Order: sequence, then C-alpha cells, then structure tokens
Amino acid sequence: MKTPLARYMRNRGTLIERSLLRYVRGADPTAIPFLAPAPKILARSMQYSLMAGGKRLRPVLVMAAAECCGLPGRKVLQTACALEMIHTYSLIHDDLPAMDDDDLRRGKPTNHKVFGEAVAILAGDGLLTAAFELAADNAARLRLSGADTADLVRVIAAGSGWRGMVGGQAADLEAEGLAGKRLDNGSSGKARRLLDYIHTHKTAALITASLEAGAVLARASRKQREALRAYGRAVGLAFQIADDVLDRVGDKKKLGKSGSDIANDKLTYPRLYGIEPSRRRAQALSAEALRRLKPFGKAAAPLRELAEYIVARDR
Amino acid sequence: MKTPLARYMRNRGTLIERSLLRYVRGADPTAIPFLAPAPKILARSMQYSLMAGGKRLRPVLVMAAAECCGLPGRKVLQTACALEMIHTYSLIHDDLPAMDDDDLRRGKPTNHKVFGEAVAILAGDGLLTAAFELAADNAARLRLSGADTADLVRVIAAGSGWRGMVGGQAADLEAEGLAGKRLDNGSSGKARRLLDYIHTHKTAALITASLEAGAVLARASRKQREALRAYGRAVGLAFQIADDVLDRVGDKKKLGKSGSDIANDKLTYPRLYGIEPSRRRAQALSAEALRRLKPFGKAAAPLRELAEYIVARDR
Repeated sequence: MKTPLARYMRNRGTLIERSLLRYVRGADPTAIPFLAPAPKILARSMQYSLMAGGKRLRPVLVMAAAECCGLPGRKVLQTACALEMIHTYSLIHDDLPAMDDDDLRRGKPTNHKVFGEAVAILAGDGLLTAAFELAADNAARLRLSGADTADLVRVIAAGSGWRGMVGGQAADLEAEGLAGKRLDNGSSGKARRLLDYIHTHKTAALITASLEAGAVLARASRKQREALRAYGRAVGLAFQIADDVLDRVGDKKKLGKSGSDIANDKLTYPRLYGIEPSRRRAQALSAEALRRLKPFGKAAAPLRELAEYIVARDR
Repeated sequence: MKTPLARYMRNRGTLIERSLLRYVRGADPTAIPFLAPAPKILARSMQYSLMAGGKRLRPVLVMAAAECCGLPGRKVLQTACALEMIHTYSLIHDDLPAMDDDDLRRGKPTNHKVFGEAVAILAGDGLLTAAFELAADNAARLRLSGADTADLVRVIAAGSGWRGMVGGQAADLEAEGLAGKRLDNGSSGKARRLLDYIHTHKTAALITASLEAGAVLARASRKQREALRAYGRAVGLAFQIADDVLDRVGDKKKLGKSGSDIANDKLTYPRLYGIEPSRRRAQALSAEALRRLKPFGKAAAPLRELAEYIVARDR
C-alpha cells in the first residue's frame, strides 16, 4: 500500500528501529557505572526478537498521540521504543512451550527455539524492565513535572501489568479449557464475559497505554487524554477482533504465523459470534474510534487512517 | 535472635507484609477505570509467592536507607513493596523448570508446582510490572520533582534489568556449563571474572537499587547516595558469598531449600576459592560496608547491624 498512512508508518518505523538498535547495542548513556555489559547471549536474544520486524503499531501510536497534542514525534522516541519492548517481551513469553508453544513468529523461529527457554524468559524480563528505564529517561529529558513523570510510568505499568495485558493473557489461558466445550446457555454467557475481558485487556490495554503515554509526554489536557483513551479502547478491540477473523480466514503465508489459535481451539470472536457479525462489530468500533478524534482536527490524520486500516487490512 | 536488628526487621517486616497484601488484594486506588479485576488464579499465584515469608531484606533496606537520610520509613512503604515484588518475581522465574528447576522454596512448593508454568511466568511478569506502578505512585505522593521521579524509576529498572539482576541471572546460566569442568590456568581466570560479574549483578545490583531508591525518595545528597551505593555493593557481595557458603555447609532444614546449587554444580565462591577464603572475603566486605556508613552516625544503626549479621547468620 502507498497511502499516506503507509508512508507515515514507514517513516516513523525507521526512526523507531534505529532507536531500538542503538539501545540494545548499549549506546545508551543511562547504564549504572559499576555494571559491566550484559552477557552477549542475553543481548543477542533481546535484539533478535526486537528487530524481527512487525508493524511497530504501538510505538507509532505513542508518536502519533504526541503529535496530536502538539509535540513532535521524535521527542517521544524513547517511550515509543519502550512500548515496542513491552509488546516484544509479551510475544516472547507468549510463545514459550508452557504458554502457546509456538515455533514460528513473523515467519521466523521463535526466541526460545533459537536461544533456549531459559534465555527467552530472561530476554523477556530484560525487555520489560528496560522499557521503564527508557520511559523515565524520556520524561526527564522533556523536563516533565514529578506528577506527569509518575503518571507516565503508571499508565504504562497499569496497561501492561496484571490488571492490564498480563491479566488478559492469564484470562486467555483460562479460556482455553472453556473453548473446547460446547457453548450453550449459561456457559455461553460466561464465555462472552470472559472474551470481553480478554479483548479489553490482552490487546486494547497496551494500545491505550501507548496513546496515553504519548499524550502525557505532550502535556495533553485531561479531555485530550480521555479522547485518546476512548479511541485506543475502540481501536484495540477492533484490532483484536480483526486479528481473530484473519487468523480464521486469512492467508497463512501473508500472516507468517502458524495459526495456533485454531489448533488450540481458543475462545475468539469469530468462534463465538461467527465471521460476519465479528466483522460488523470491528467496523462499528472503528467508526466509534473516528468519532473520538474529531476534536484533534488535521493533526489526527494518521490515527484516523489507522482506525480505518485496521478493519480493512488483510495481514 | 532478639537483637535490636531483629526487632527492627520484625517491625518493618510486618508493615511491609501488610502493604503487600493490601496491594495484591486490589485495595490499591491506582487501577485503570475500565479494567476489571485480574483473573483470580493470577492474583492468587502472585499472592502465594509474595506472602511466602522470607527475610524481606530488600524492602527493609529501602526503609532503612530513607531513614538514614531523614525520611520516616513508612513514607517509602510502596517502594519497599516494589523491591520485594521484583525480588519475588526473580525467584519465581528462577525456579522454573527451564531455569533452576526447583521444587521447593522456603520449604514450600515453588510457584509453578502449585499453579503451573504458564501462570507462574505471568505472575512473575505481573509482579515486575506492578513494582514500577507502586514506585511511581510513591514518588507522586511524596511530591518528588520530575528529575527525582525519573531517577527513582531508572535506579530500580537498571538494578533489576538486563544490565543488572537479569544480566547476572543470564551469566549464572552461562556459568553452569563452565562449573562442571576442571578449572585450571586460563579457564580459572575466566571463571573468576564470570563469578565476579554474577555476584555484582545477580544480588548486589538489586540490593544497591533498594538502598538508592530509599535515598532518592528521601531527597538525599549526591554524597549520601554514593555512600549507600558503595555500602550496597559491599553488603550485596558479602551476602551472596555468605549464601554460597551456607549452601555448602549450612543445615538444609534451617535453609528450607533443596540445595540445588550443589546439584547443578554451579560456579560459586566456595567452589572456586574454598570455604575459609570465602568467609574471609565476606568479612572484609562487611568491614568495608561499615566504613561507608560513618557519615550517617546513629541513623545508620540498622544498616550497620545488618552488615555484621549477614556474615554471621546461619540461615
């Protein structure tokens, strides 16, 4: 695709990848003096998954949200990288044999297939921790107030943590048992509530955190933050539903993953409501997301296109 | 023991355990509005390891460091809990089958033995993330400046992350292969460097971060922070060496662990230098730690006793 959105994502994506590489190679100045460089295998493992491509959606959202609120995207690059690190860590841990047991991710062997399970667990831990280091450093460079700095860290931690993304992953595990069964009457109601929990937490929570982080760094007003949060929730849900639909009907080669969600018989929107109703729900959410952007005018063009693209994409 | 240190640790320990419980039970007010409570099994798993006892050394250090610098310990309780959460997450991940494969911890079944590997991984991730939420909240309540808030987060992240504790754990894995071999000439030099890296990172980095976090929250001077950092490094090393010695000669029942370090034939101080030279090194480090506390006078009494206790303890 050669739309303005594609150009925007490619441009921001390049900036993000350059920053990620600089950090993992250790050019970052925030190291503690007495600590020597980390073992090479750990740095290599972190770098492997971090540089394995992907849409870079979350870091682009950090930058786009900041731009919406009047701060140039390059000023929030560290926090953008932080959100990509959190996303990457969650994929590494998600792919582990004890979790989804996936061998492939984006068409390449998963982290534990290359570095072993122990290093993969530690690489995930290292990425999650590094994210907070980077975000805090970003706040300090922008001379944010104490309250805003604390807010930035809390927004990221809450969105990615046990009452956010990690909670969604735990619910996802819980749902695996349920999905194998026939879903009728009472069990179907329980399944729907569980699925809603999974969707608002597993994906939407981190997407919302990305947008809010960008807004906090740009010293956005309360109204702006609320609008971006609502946009994030709608777009995050739409994204997850679209992802599940793609997993069901998409071309496996284009997606570059092995379709384990079907193999594991997971609880998904298409499974519970059918393909067409799922598509309609994703489109309604996309429309809601667009409404939330109205107050931002032209500055929100990339976010607007993104909400449209998410429900139209084929991979 | 009924020394002043024992009273101090029991008193602070009770405060810390009460706070930890309050947080994991969800009474914490920092939750994101749209996020429902986390799945029960995740909360139970986090709570299980968090409330499994232990010395609460790191959180006590946060409080003691703050007190040294003139701030009452109860003002830094959230950050104290944060450091205990990070310590607990590292134990949960460390015990996993892919890592140390331990069945017992403090005399009780390890987290993955009770909740399964997948939940144990997520519980660790959840605890690590929650730590940053709590620390940031603490900074906001104390109305710390932006620079100090960022500093607090960076100190904790760097100490626990891939160039700190996680780096030490990765080096520890690397060392396992080496330790099985005969260590002579060249390989012994390499082993000594690796062991030094492991010791300064696996334990000392988080202990130092605990002390510095307390100091930052108390708005300590640069000199005070440097003194506490040097104290932390010496005491952390002494602690690790004493731990390895205990693992070798201590009463297994008192320790309440299964002595896997010997079973795995790990690279340790006693293995490389012998029991007596290891004890002497720990004592020299303890003496160095005491020297660093001189400028603090009476306020440093608990830290002083702690440095003495660490090399004298039998469990």
